[in-house]
Amino acid sequence: MDIPSRTNCNGSKYPCFLFYIKGELSLQHYFHPSKTSAINMLIPIFFILSFLFSSTNAADFCVGDLNGPVGPAGYSCKKTVTVNDFVYSGLAATGNTSNLIKAAVTPAFSAQFPGVNGLGISIARLDLAVGGVIPMHTHPGASEVLVVIQGTICAGFISSANKVYFKSLNKGDIMVFPQGLLHFQINAGKTQSLAFVSFSSPDPGLQILDFALFANDLPTDIIEETTFLDAAQIKKLKGVLGGTG
Amino acid sequence: MDIPSRTNCNGSKYPCFLFYIKGELSLQHYFHPSKTSAINMLIPIFFILSFLFSSTNAADFCVGDLNGPVGPAGYSCKKTVTVNDFVYSGLAATGNTSNLIKAAVTPAFSAQFPGVNGLGISIARLDLAVGGVIPMHTHPGASEVLVVIQGTICAGFISSANKVYFKSLNKGDIMVFPQGLLHFQINAGKTQSLAFVSFSSPDPGLQILDFALFANDLPTDIIEETTFLDAAQIKKLKGVLGGTG
Amino acid sequence: MDIPSRTNCNGSKYPCFLFYIKGELSLQHYFHPSKTSAINMLIPIFFILSFLFSSTNAADFCVGDLNGPVGPAGYSCKKTVTVNDFVYSGLAATGNTSNLIKAAVTPAFSAQFPGVNGLGISIARLDLAVGGVIPMHTHPGASEVLVVIQGTICAGFISSANKVYFKSLNKGDIMVFPQGLLHFQINAGKTQSLAFVSFSSPDPGLQILDFALFANDLPTDIIEETTFLDAAQIKKLKGVLGGTG
Amino acid sequence: MDIPSRTNCNGSKYPCFLFYIKGELSLQHYFHPSKTSAINMLIPIFFILSFLFSSTNAADFCVGDLNGPVGPAGYSCKKTVTVNDFVYSGLAATGNTSNLIKAAVTPAFSAQFPGVNGLGISIARLDLAVGGVIPMHTHPGASEVLVVIQGTICAGFISSANKVYFKSLNKGDIMVFPQGLLHFQINAGKTQSLAFVSFSSPDPGLQILDFALFANDLPTDIIEETTFLDAAQIKKLKGVLGGTG
Amino acid sequence: MDIPSRTNCNGSKYPCFLFYIKGELSLQHYFHPSKTSAINMLIPIFFILSFLFSSTNAADFCVGDLNGPVGPAGYSCKKTVTVNDFVYSGLAATGNTSNLIKAAVTPAFSAQFPGVNGLGISIARLDLAVGGVIPMHTHPGASEVLVVIQGTICAGFISSANKVYFKSLNKGDIMVFPQGLLHFQINAGKTQSLAFVSFSSPDPGLQILDFALFANDLPTDIIEETTFLDAAQIKKLKGVLGGTG
Amino acid sequence: MDIPSRTNCNGSKYPCFLFYIKGELSLQHYFHPSKTSAINMLIPIFFILSFLFSSTNAADFCVGDLNGPVGPAGYSCKKTVTVNDFVYSGLAATGNTSNLIKAAVTPAFSAQFPGVNGLGISIARLDLAVGGVIPMHTHPGASEVLVVIQGTICAGFISSANKVYFKSLNKGDIMVFPQGLLHFQINAGKTQSLAFVSFSSPDPGLQILDFALFANDLPTDIIEETTFLDAAQIKKLKGVLGGTG
Repeated sequence: MDIPSRTNCNGSKYPCFLFYIKGELSLQHYFHPSKTSAINMLIPIFFILSFLFSSTNAADFCVGDLNGPVGPAGYSCKKTVTVNDFVYSGLAATGNTSNLIKAAVTPAFSAQFPGVNGLGISIARLDLAVGGVIPMHTHPGASEVLVVIQGTICAGFISSANKVYFKSLNKGDIMVFPQGLLHFQINAGKTQSLAFVSFSSPDPGLQILDFALFANDLPTDIIEETTFLDAAQIKKLKGVLGGTG
Repeated sequence: MDIPSRTNCNGSKYPCFLFYIKGELSLQHYFHPSKTSAINMLIPIFFILSFLFSSTNAADFCVGDLNGPVGPAGYSCKKTVTVNDFVYSGLAATGNTSNLIKAAVTPAFSAQFPGVNGLGISIARLDLAVGGVIPMHTHPGASEVLVVIQGTICAGFISSANKVYFKSLNKGDIMVFPQGLLHFQINAGKTQSLAFVSFSSPDPGLQILDFALFANDLPTDIIEETTFLDAAQIKKLKGVLGGTG
Repeated sequence: MDIPSRTNCNGSKYPCFLFYIKGELSLQHYFHPSKTSAINMLIPIFFILSFLFSSTNAADFCVGDLNGPVGPAGYSCKKTVTVNDFVYSGLAATGNTSNLIKAAVTPAFSAQFPGVNGLGISIARLDLAVGGVIPMHTHPGASEVLVVIQGTICAGFISSANKVYFKSLNKGDIMVFPQGLLHFQINAGKTQSLAFVSFSSPDPGLQILDFALFANDLPTDIIEETTFLDAAQIKKLKGVLGGTG
Repeated sequence: MDIPSRTNCNGSKYPCFLFYIKGELSLQHYFHPSKTSAINMLIPIFFILSFLFSSTNAADFCVGDLNGPVGPAGYSCKKTVTVNDFVYSGLAATGNTSNLIKAAVTPAFSAQFPGVNGLGISIARLDLAVGGVIPMHTHPGASEVLVVIQGTICAGFISSANKVYFKSLNKGDIMVFPQGLLHFQINAGKTQSLAFVSFSSPDPGLQILDFALFANDLPTDIIEETTFLDAAQIKKLKGVLGGTG
Repeated sequence: MDIPSRTNCNGSKYPCFLFYIKGELSLQHYFHPSKTSAINMLIPIFFILSFLFSSTNAADFCVGDLNGPVGPAGYSCKKTVTVNDFVYSGLAATGNTSNLIKAAVTPAFSAQFPGVNGLGISIARLDLAVGGVIPMHTHPGASEVLVVIQGTICAGFISSANKVYFKSLNKGDIMVFPQGLLHFQINAGKTQSLAFVSFSSPDPGLQILDFALFANDLPTDIIEETTFLDAAQIKKLKGVLGGTG
Repeated sequence: MDIPSRTNCNGSKYPCFLFYIKGELSLQHYFHPSKTSAINMLIPIFFILSFLFSSTNAADFCVGDLNGPVGPAGYSCKKTVTVNDFVYSGLAATGNTSNLIKAAVTPAFSAQFPGVNGLGISIARLDLAVGGVIPMHTHPGASEVLVVIQGTICAGFISSANKVYFKSLNKGDIMVFPQGLLHFQINAGKTQSLAFVSFSSPDPGLQILDFALFANDLPTDIIEETTFLDAAQIKKLKGVLGGTG
């Protein structure tokens, strides 16, 4: 009897798919390169399948076209892509830490690395010279995982319940910072530190507390009222960070 | 000819569904209350449909069971619900503004109003006495829309690009605050102000900058390093807000 | 010993980040406004950070460009925005209730208030004169939270399990209506009522039952068959609501 | 020179991966079944990889445990599964159409077919006898695609803009019904019709207009006010569908 | 007493909405077609509501404009749509199975059937001649539900834990294949088989293992290293499937 | 004139928030630590805010409770957390590459590192000895970004359109692999290589092609039919990888 029963196909020693091969060419026969007719027969399905997906690669990826329209989900998809759209060398070089914070953040977000557009992930490089600090900041649009590549980093975040979670991380340690919460990283060693941080969005955003408060024209009075900081403190930091008002 | 053509059903004057009614009882006939047989015929489908959805209401809503397990998507669903699970009167009373900020935030998030659990929305009430301020804060998990019900409110937010957007809002004005960005509300009038704020999540979180920095045990040295504030300023605010370290 | 142990950074009285400050300029020194070199040193990181996010604000928000292409996630992002893109006064005025339902819905969805585009939230104003009714309707794309600002409103919804949940709401009461379910609001008092309703989408849609059935060219026969309403009833309402067929 | 240049690995005729094979055992050597040592070497990685994913299958699927807690994202995951959790025969039999609507909906939603729990999809079977109708209804939580297997079906939906889209569908035709919109299916032929409908959610919900309005205790006065239907019409349908009030 | 108490509106026999009708025109009066003034009064709300949603149908659907920009969420929305945008007859005809696999996949993804764009669902038709096979493949972007319309199909998938789930399916049986996992379908009967497969995405993608490995220019050495297949086996299949390198 | 006009608060030199401070205590006055009454006044708001979020941290994070119920969105949330729940040292040590593939994958997915549960991200460590290979595999549930820390890695993926994208990556280079697509990594240098790979899901899954095909009881006949591989090749690899059937 050739009709497979339901159980035959599910682990029996006489699988359901055997009986219908009888009387036909073996698969090996079909696929022998010398079988010209087999090759010819293959062409239809090959071209049909290729054709279906040739007009757009939206199913797989959507490399950002930085010159096209942008929507809530990200950049428009670039029409023609090569492997270079998926590879980025911009994080290979040490960031310039000759600045006040003795640190550098080098992002590979969708604006720098359009290959991650629409894929729900991005990455950045953190360099911290001795004494370097990534000041208190948030990423409004993503959670973050940090992995220490070199040195020792004291990292922490503060929850909505105002509880502080911080710890000294050594080489190879990882730490996760939940989305939108204030967090920081400090070089806690006597040597240059390096970390990579990954994000759950191709465009996580970055709001550095001091820049948000003191590097723009937000009036001192509003800052005073909404942060309880002294006016003198505010004006001092505005002076350093280029803020006005 | 009874077989409908494809075009018949699409806007012609002889719709495709007419022909098959001929020779049958009219619908009015079926539904006349005196037709006992019709009522009996209805029962099967009625019970079948009811039965399918009686075991769980997960398709429609998931009123939070505050005592059950919590997952990334929210609380477990309460098994039996009434209309009172979808109504909340906790925002009806004016919040107590006899405090330092002369303001009160009364939330109806999923922890207070479990009816919104899983529904992607929540709401809170803002009361601002004269001189009242909702200090600089973020909602890590939601965007916010504010509507002024009474008074005048100066509200604003700061973008990742450090640009400040703020404006004085009058009664009936609305303002949107994108997810995760620092923002504030100040009573800008000479009378008590009232606003309702809605969120794009049943559990938006709330991180008040001053509480995050000064109302816990985050060491002064770390705050100093990561915010550039003076130690004296930090200690002063820790003193007021109950922080240690 | 200068190398911080893992536990040092986690609550000890000698935090891990202290040792590497020795021998360096104090932070206060750096930030004194008179320190020209400090200001100059800051410029690189300041400009680097600003530059990263200047080309697009997609990370934070995406104010809708009503003239650009629209996609499944909403409108394209407007290139230049001001605070006025995030503020809307269109809900400040009482809606015109001089109509059959003695009520008005004034929406601030993304089409009216492009600031909410992509942010997962929107809002509308409900005005109900005495005897006013927001007829049975659904929002196909969002859950809704209603807050009563003035008057008394009898509001309710019907679940997939055909259970009815309705209640009389007073000033300050809130009620949630799960996505896609039939619901209604009736002025249940002797005075004008006002409510604001928020939605878990910038574009929730609005399908009013009577308009869907009787205000278009859906043939009477189809309505009859699919709703069991009498033809006379259907034709009567089509007559009032402007429907044909 | 053995160090690969960046371009070597990208399409050159001397691929980058060739040079480091020299001097090592060939892969064929490793994998020859007679090489006992090779088999032994494999065991560590084999067990490591198996172990990582043995405690939970959450990454791949989450067959619903109908007795466990339910959350906004669906049922809890069943601990032990077999192929029978992913196969369902409940749609194989023709639905019982001996009822008033001469039609039957047989769902395979997560409550009936827990294998789809968490997977964003479900399916149902529609049987329509001659004259059969799936009355006006919505799925609050999913879009739907219908494929006609047998017969002719007049199907349609109404948009938020009150525009009607309907057409007569023949065998093999498909139609999509966007989420949350009122739609219907009518047997438009002289023979039994069969269709399968798929949904973009494992738990799409189903709100049948007539059952929502007339098969519960929603007071006639409220229905009258919110639908503009005549009281007599309402009471007539309540009588048929078992409603009270 | 006319003021409704909170409990009045919730199931009492004197519903809250009754009292305010007294002294006003009855609803029936309003809606009588001969009441010209009533019709006129309706026009404002009718046009207001229509106007709100006339500029875009984004709330309900987003029929893909195959010539417009594509983003991570799919195609741009077509500006003008008719019912034909929501109906597709491309799956009505039997696929051409005169090829090596004796099978055909005919998709109605967003590229072929733009009506599903943005709606989270799509569908395809599987035809399997006697001996036909849909070879081992994955859909990177969607879970799949298969329903057997005709014949017997042996279908299976392999989990991340390397466990195999397969079974012989008869007419009417359904099976779910979780997102991204390798799976296959084999005609397990002696007659032509037909199935429809639905996907939890309008653009699920399709990666056929043999085409991915052997139908392009992936160098034989890389395939050898990453699959442990013998070079002879690889070259044989490349020969058949048109691969080079 | 004290009433702020709408424009006053928006960039004028007389900001809207100034006038109402007159006649009140200055903020500095309020916050001086010696002002006992100020401290007392603060207590109410402090405790109110703390209380709101003390019962659950669901808003911020949901550290997985590996012993609790699992749902489609992940593990249940652990009730009490410390900083150690957010830090993981399991990736610090070099993986054991003494195996056939001369490589090791050490994951920090939610099962190993429950801190990422619900946060949309995870990470893993790749160690490749000289000649090491991460064989052809997919992650059904996530996109991946790889960063080379040490050595040279030839990495690539194959799209749904069967196009191959591969390149030799040096230290600091990153590459993105879109969700669900076949990809591989080969040590392309003469030294040990190290990379970290991040995923857009806390539970990305991992399906290694060879293990899926040859390390279980999937019958040889089914493999033969669905992959076109020769039976001898299949049996050879089953022998090595421990497969049966």
